[in-house]
Amino acid sequence: MVKLVAMYRTPDDVKAFDDHYNSVHTPLVKKYPGLRKIEVAKVYGAPIGEPKQHLIAEMYFDNHDAMQNAFRSPEGKAAAGDLMEFAGKLVSMFYAEVQE
Amino acid sequence: MVKLVAMYRTPDDVKAFDDHYNSVHTPLVKKYPGLRKIEVAKVYGAPIGEPKQHLIAEMYFDNHDAMQNAFRSPEGKAAAGDLMEFAGKLVSMFYAEVQE
Repeated sequence: MVKLVAMYRTPDDVKAFDDHYNSVHTPLVKKYPGLRKIEVAKVYGAPIGEPKQHLIAEMYFDNHDAMQNAFRSPEGKAAAGDLMEFAGKLVSMFYAEVQE
Repeated sequence: MVKLVAMYRTPDDVKAFDDHYNSVHTPLVKKYPGLRKIEVAKVYGAPIGEPKQHLIAEMYFDNHDAMQNAFRSPEGKAAAGDLMEFAGKLVSMFYAEVQE
């Protein structure tokens, strides 16, 4: 199992971000072909200092090829286009393979 | 459900890090009282550029109080002591509440 991890820095307008994320972006992401699971979590603190992140979202696929196929699909391109528009400057992403 | 997210930057000596993480640190973390789940994933790439992270670990608890109780326990202090010793300069952590 692999996942795309997307971390969002705290936006200037948290309410506008959350509204768009929940009502527009998440429904687009859920259309990814081959998506096995999505976990979205709201960052609310840190053991030391203040966290810079606002949200962490993880999208799970069977393997790297399945994930890449999702990104190349029309649904994947729609989600990526929306992401760049509303949060291109806030998001950082990486791929990770689940060990356990 | 809440989680502690720990992200590790790529260490100088990846093998030594992985050996310690798997054989010493993870067994300590698994002793946390109230731990519901742990997910460890190895970062292997990114949609754009090279990722700075090496590993992401997520520890799940029923709620914030349960997580804090785990950190205050002898097992929590042992895991934190080990963490600071082998990866204090590599790790960044935050708390997040799972939305879905």
